[in-house]
Amino acid sequence: MEYAQRTEAGLSPGRWLQERYRDVRETTERLADPLEAEDYVVQAMEDVCPPKWHLAHTTWFLEAAVLQRYAPRYEWYDHNYAALFASGEFGGEFHASVPRGVGLRPTIEEIYRYRRHVDERILELLENADEERLARVTPYFELSLNHELQHQEQLVADIKYNYFADPLKPVYRERKESGLHVLPYLTWHKFAEGQAEIGHQGPGFAFDNEMPRHKVWIGGFRLASQPVTNGEYLQFVEDGGYRQPRLWLAEGWNCVQKYGWEAPLYWEKRDGNWWYYTLSGMRELELDEPVCHVSYYEADAYARWAGRRLPTEAEWEVAFSAIRPEGNFAESGWFHPAPSGSSHGELLLQGYGDIWEWTMSPYLPYPGNRRTEGPFGEYHGKYMSNRMVLRGGSCITPRGLIRPTTRHYLLPEKRWQFSGIRLADDLEE
Amino acid sequence: MEYAQRTEAGLSPGRWLQERYRDVRETTERLADPLEAEDYVVQAMEDVCPPKWHLAHTTWFLEAAVLQRYAPRYEWYDHNYAALFASGEFGGEFHASVPRGVGLRPTIEEIYRYRRHVDERILELLENADEERLARVTPYFELSLNHELQHQEQLVADIKYNYFADPLKPVYRERKESGLHVLPYLTWHKFAEGQAEIGHQGPGFAFDNEMPRHKVWIGGFRLASQPVTNGEYLQFVEDGGYRQPRLWLAEGWNCVQKYGWEAPLYWEKRDGNWWYYTLSGMRELELDEPVCHVSYYEADAYARWAGRRLPTEAEWEVAFSAIRPEGNFAESGWFHPAPSGSSHGELLLQGYGDIWEWTMSPYLPYPGNRRTEGPFGEYHGKYMSNRMVLRGGSCITPRGLIRPTTRHYLLPEKRWQFSGIRLADDLEE
Amino acid sequence: MEYAQRTEAGLSPGRWLQERYRDVRETTERLADPLEAEDYVVQAMEDVCPPKWHLAHTTWFLEAAVLQRYAPRYEWYDHNYAALFASGEFGGEFHASVPRGVGLRPTIEEIYRYRRHVDERILELLENADEERLARVTPYFELSLNHELQHQEQLVADIKYNYFADPLKPVYRERKESGLHVLPYLTWHKFAEGQAEIGHQGPGFAFDNEMPRHKVWIGGFRLASQPVTNGEYLQFVEDGGYRQPRLWLAEGWNCVQKYGWEAPLYWEKRDGNWWYYTLSGMRELELDEPVCHVSYYEADAYARWAGRRLPTEAEWEVAFSAIRPEGNFAESGWFHPAPSGSSHGELLLQGYGDIWEWTMSPYLPYPGNRRTEGPFGEYHGKYMSNRMVLRGGSCITPRGLIRPTTRHYLLPEKRWQFSGIRLADDLEE
Amino acid sequence: MEYAQRTEAGLSPGRWLQERYRDVRETTERLADPLEAEDYVVQAMEDVCPPKWHLAHTTWFLEAAVLQRYAPRYEWYDHNYAALFASGEFGGEFHASVPRGVGLRPTIEEIYRYRRHVDERILELLENADEERLARVTPYFELSLNHELQHQEQLVADIKYNYFADPLKPVYRERKESGLHVLPYLTWHKFAEGQAEIGHQGPGFAFDNEMPRHKVWIGGFRLASQPVTNGEYLQFVEDGGYRQPRLWLAEGWNCVQKYGWEAPLYWEKRDGNWWYYTLSGMRELELDEPVCHVSYYEADAYARWAGRRLPTEAEWEVAFSAIRPEGNFAESGWFHPAPSGSSHGELLLQGYGDIWEWTMSPYLPYPGNRRTEGPFGEYHGKYMSNRMVLRGGSCITPRGLIRPTTRHYLLPEKRWQFSGIRLADDLEE
Repeated sequence: MEYAQRTEAGLSPGRWLQERYRDVRETTERLADPLEAEDYVVQAMEDVCPPKWHLAHTTWFLEAAVLQRYAPRYEWYDHNYAALFASGEFGGEFHASVPRGVGLRPTIEEIYRYRRHVDERILELLENADEERLARVTPYFELSLNHELQHQEQLVADIKYNYFADPLKPVYRERKESGLHVLPYLTWHKFAEGQAEIGHQGPGFAFDNEMPRHKVWIGGFRLASQPVTNGEYLQFVEDGGYRQPRLWLAEGWNCVQKYGWEAPLYWEKRDGNWWYYTLSGMRELELDEPVCHVSYYEADAYARWAGRRLPTEAEWEVAFSAIRPEGNFAESGWFHPAPSGSSHGELLLQGYGDIWEWTMSPYLPYPGNRRTEGPFGEYHGKYMSNRMVLRGGSCITPRGLIRPTTRHYLLPEKRWQFSGIRLADDLEE
Repeated sequence: MEYAQRTEAGLSPGRWLQERYRDVRETTERLADPLEAEDYVVQAMEDVCPPKWHLAHTTWFLEAAVLQRYAPRYEWYDHNYAALFASGEFGGEFHASVPRGVGLRPTIEEIYRYRRHVDERILELLENADEERLARVTPYFELSLNHELQHQEQLVADIKYNYFADPLKPVYRERKESGLHVLPYLTWHKFAEGQAEIGHQGPGFAFDNEMPRHKVWIGGFRLASQPVTNGEYLQFVEDGGYRQPRLWLAEGWNCVQKYGWEAPLYWEKRDGNWWYYTLSGMRELELDEPVCHVSYYEADAYARWAGRRLPTEAEWEVAFSAIRPEGNFAESGWFHPAPSGSSHGELLLQGYGDIWEWTMSPYLPYPGNRRTEGPFGEYHGKYMSNRMVLRGGSCITPRGLIRPTTRHYLLPEKRWQFSGIRLADDLEE
Repeated sequence: MEYAQRTEAGLSPGRWLQERYRDVRETTERLADPLEAEDYVVQAMEDVCPPKWHLAHTTWFLEAAVLQRYAPRYEWYDHNYAALFASGEFGGEFHASVPRGVGLRPTIEEIYRYRRHVDERILELLENADEERLARVTPYFELSLNHELQHQEQLVADIKYNYFADPLKPVYRERKESGLHVLPYLTWHKFAEGQAEIGHQGPGFAFDNEMPRHKVWIGGFRLASQPVTNGEYLQFVEDGGYRQPRLWLAEGWNCVQKYGWEAPLYWEKRDGNWWYYTLSGMRELELDEPVCHVSYYEADAYARWAGRRLPTEAEWEVAFSAIRPEGNFAESGWFHPAPSGSSHGELLLQGYGDIWEWTMSPYLPYPGNRRTEGPFGEYHGKYMSNRMVLRGGSCITPRGLIRPTTRHYLLPEKRWQFSGIRLADDLEE
Repeated sequence: MEYAQRTEAGLSPGRWLQERYRDVRETTERLADPLEAEDYVVQAMEDVCPPKWHLAHTTWFLEAAVLQRYAPRYEWYDHNYAALFASGEFGGEFHASVPRGVGLRPTIEEIYRYRRHVDERILELLENADEERLARVTPYFELSLNHELQHQEQLVADIKYNYFADPLKPVYRERKESGLHVLPYLTWHKFAEGQAEIGHQGPGFAFDNEMPRHKVWIGGFRLASQPVTNGEYLQFVEDGGYRQPRLWLAEGWNCVQKYGWEAPLYWEKRDGNWWYYTLSGMRELELDEPVCHVSYYEADAYARWAGRRLPTEAEWEVAFSAIRPEGNFAESGWFHPAPSGSSHGELLLQGYGDIWEWTMSPYLPYPGNRRTEGPFGEYHGKYMSNRMVLRGGSCITPRGLIRPTTRHYLLPEKRWQFSGIRLADDLEE
């Protein structure tokens, strides 16, 4: 639901923003509910942020982007917090590539007090603002909420990694059954050569990196109706896929050797059977689910092994732009990719939700994209090298983050986010 | 001069190939002439190969690609050499990302004996082959010669780095004056939005990564008439360009901090003046020459500082495809970028030769490019991640390597090759 | 108070052991009282153990050394705990050279429950054992209590380091004034050449590494009446001591360069004045206190700068064997070295307590020392290389650990324990 | 032959020194004779110096210690050389713990020219000096020659390592048969408790670290009649000695895991049989030779496995002080430990030559040793931590370096020098 649609709900603009605000902030805290004290503090690898930091950083972002700009005479809650919880430059970042210097203080309780304080001031601001002020606040307010949605996703991905790294492998939440048990059946969808447009245009919120909408030329291509499953990927593993350098990009093969990769992250072989760690603990591998927690290098090697390739982000967007972004997102509460169903050759399945899909497109600015000043411009620009684009959102992505144009990006060796594979191919002539 | 043009020279096909062969092989050895014994062995950093290795590896390539396939009953010269001088997979690679295990044996003299042996067998093969056999040999023969041309360039770049790393900073060759002393004068060339085609097509030799020729959509853009000069880059340095994180991509800023970058590779400040190491020793910085030995990150940061951007490789190719690839290549013997002249607004200068120009295009396969089996296909494919494309060749590139479609590629942090900057910008509407 | 002296207190043997047990275990927990939840989990460097681990490991040691051996049909509290909290070999170690894989589970509360469970079973064992059984239990029981005393010291040293590493530098306890303000006055005590005996002999508890008592030949020497003070050490710092390689052992100079040492650990210069971190927070440097938190390399370099040397451990023991081990130990509650007083040339001051004193003796087995089987033998043997001996205990050492023969040992570069310097010299003839 | 004995040879003092000088210098160059150009430059690991550096550094030492002091108006041959070939402080070092910045220039020929120049000037100095001047020159001259003898040993040890690291494993010299084929037969020699004196005293040359002679108390001990053989050590290997942490010191076990040690350096298992690299190439392991190229940690673990211990350096010196230092030194030309013979219970065999014997004594200054100023004092002092003493010299040690009091020292993990094991034990009472 966009700002422009606020009246549909019969709410005043301020009231409507208050409701959205409460919803996002409470969701973040609900995600932290199952955590024990130690879970807030731990950072099991560099990519991961301590959960404490997510709770505090998103709050600092609201202070910096909204309260400092629009709340009359607002004073920082604590200058130390600004130093501890700011990201490199105002505007923050989606992907934490640097370990966060979170330490002993402030304590967990102090951070929750900090959240309460900022919540009160934000709600007060929204309560008292007239329509003109609200219109000015809204872009920064939207940015801040979208920022917190992004951190909700990362919080869960980080918890999963931290829990997995613990010898006793705690359970985050009990398993919910998806109820889906249809055998997956792969078909290919054809798209003819031609000019197209991609990118965001229009009144709703979108990140700076989705703009401007621009023309591209796309050769004819085919796209798989559904993601690669664990069962399919297992064939690659058992065919020695991780032992054949010819299948891999040079840096990918370096990773295989350096990190000893033999399967996706979280997979473990026990007595001849494959298991994987899920947020509900260790379970036997489900073959019908989409494969998850693979790097770009693994996605690329799998595609080469399968005689296919990954789609470009333009191909992906052209294929999915007409489809409503519904699917197994964080709101489903499953927090795990659902088994693939069968499309009977009619539909592109699971493009939205379940797993982020690696594309073969490096993360670059769109033609004509000029960084604007301030948090909007700084938001993504500095990460525009070395990373690859992923599309479509995952089972831990908040629904509100996903548009057909949403671009996620990761360094090609990263595996701790919920990333999977959809195959593409050239259209044979 | 292409194979198809052989008759113009009045030579039989076999004789013509023999002449080309001798020319390439002798050029390689002439480049090694000034080296002392120790210079053949040293590898001052990981990216560099010991010069011995270049001499041997190119010879092994001829054994593997030509003699093993087409010389009747050919036996490897020495099985140990095949193990020591092969690259990861047959077909080798342009850029050595892995240190070469060259050691004490074979000695320098043994390697020259190895070269003589292979030379004799190749020339014998060309002498005795009938036209049909020559036609079959030619693609692999061309690949091998082009491969050796690439290693000629890398040999010189590696010598420069090794010499620079030595405390006594030897001189490789005495300086030759370019004789150019026109003040550079920058203009901008405009290109309208539209569809275009890039990539190689036709009978002459080209690497696999230049194909297939394909359609692209290019927005309107402007291109600088000449590369950025040392004088212009110095303003960036003196304006604190290396101390402002906002100008840099995230990984670029990491490099600045990790490596302590303060200027391009080979620059040194002495008593307040800038000097740089050249293959003729340390000299005071010439302001009118194109800046050289910058990484992609520095090129990108400079462009941001200057309010511009780098061109895409498609833009570069569209702009230069109609221009003959002539310029300051290795054959000029200068081995250093020439000062920029002035175009009076009429010409795009120095696109070919002098310095490789960074583009903002990641190195990817062209649409529809399928790896073919064997050395042709394996040649470049595995490096198609994490690298950026450079265009146009440098002052140490053999002229024969450069077509308007030639794609060079480097990891974005590399600086030891002769890489510089040409600015581009969107066409304002 | 030794086991042999139990009757003096009018207690039955079992009752007396119970009292000692409660005292040691409660002291450990009292030391952890000021900790917040996050403080239990953090490990700011490799040498440090998370406080949680100390609490659990000492409990596991009681299970392994006492309950498993003497409590009828005792079952491990939790087999996972045995895996997580055991040290390399049964018998444990004093100094943690390896990071402890403590993680998210068990939680802090679960660890306290674990302590309660073991406490009950130990007290029950002591309650029900007859005199003969008690006699058999006592050696392992004593070892376990002494082991926990050692971990009390390390717990406090680790907390200090963790707190210092935190940007907000928490306070562990408010400062207590020592009340000492006498100007220190250094004198030298002479000891003539001759044969002596060192090492432990007799009925009381001692660690295996203090035995056997054995003969040594000691040349004539002089010993300083008190440790080097902050004021004296500051002169070394200001004289450029950290910038003169000639003053340093080769590995010491490596440390200076590698770690950027410019002063003892915890010292910081602010606006021209020296401050240091104490367990009561940052304070201005007190010049009359013994210098603390120096490595062996710094102690050695200081002694060379001062034209003296460090004592051997035999010299130290000969000098202090007749003096009662009383001083500023953990029981004083000051947790900081006290200012040095003046001895008027009569006494050796501060040999016990305040700071561990580095000796120039590498940590080796005493002649004839044979490792016995089991926890006694394994206790210290494997650390008998690369380490230097320290003597006398510090302000955070439990009084009960210190005998004239007690040997502490650290790698020469370590600084996070309370280590200082007493000078010695040859007797001039 | 000592300076005091010069007249015995019927030579004038100056002539005699000239002869000694020529002998040492020519021996160094004879050792380098078999090297190819690349062999002079390579440094296969940090501990190793490029052979070029040894040739130049010993020459620089003569310039610094002798010519600069005693040759009238001597000018440095080349100031660059002084910078490149000096060791950290004047006085140099025995063991190169830091990689040497030897590079491309000066070339090998230039270094030999440098040697010639210094040789001429030294011989001229000796020729022209009167007796009084000679007496003053002699200590520095002796130090310089002994320094070069030390580097002769290290040169050969370094060549062995460099050759071994080369994939083609060159041969340094053809094998000479030792001719010894007596089965070794181990006996134990008993030494009673008592006071003794160790260290150098008297007129002949000795290094500073061998002085002063001083009293020690030694408990009763037993010493093995000969070193541990390959055959004996092999039992330890096959008994799983490298897989049992209890046998190892803590840092030793770290090395086993970090470096993957499974046998001494240079051993390789091929098709079930053990081979080892010698300066005559790969050969099948000879069981009767002393085990060689073991670290202190391995020596210590072996002794523990065998139920024994290593000797202290005082025990070693007491046992061997009455025995003439003759044996398989470099002069034998075998460059490999000779098989152990049998002593019939009468003799201590192979104490001198064959292999350096690890002692359990850390390398410390002798009591009362004060560093003197200048090269004598600086020579060894800064290495007096973390290292262990070895005694007796090896098959590549020049005979002239070895006295009963000579102390060699190495970090306990080093294996590339010719180091082995002699067992000791306490005298049972």
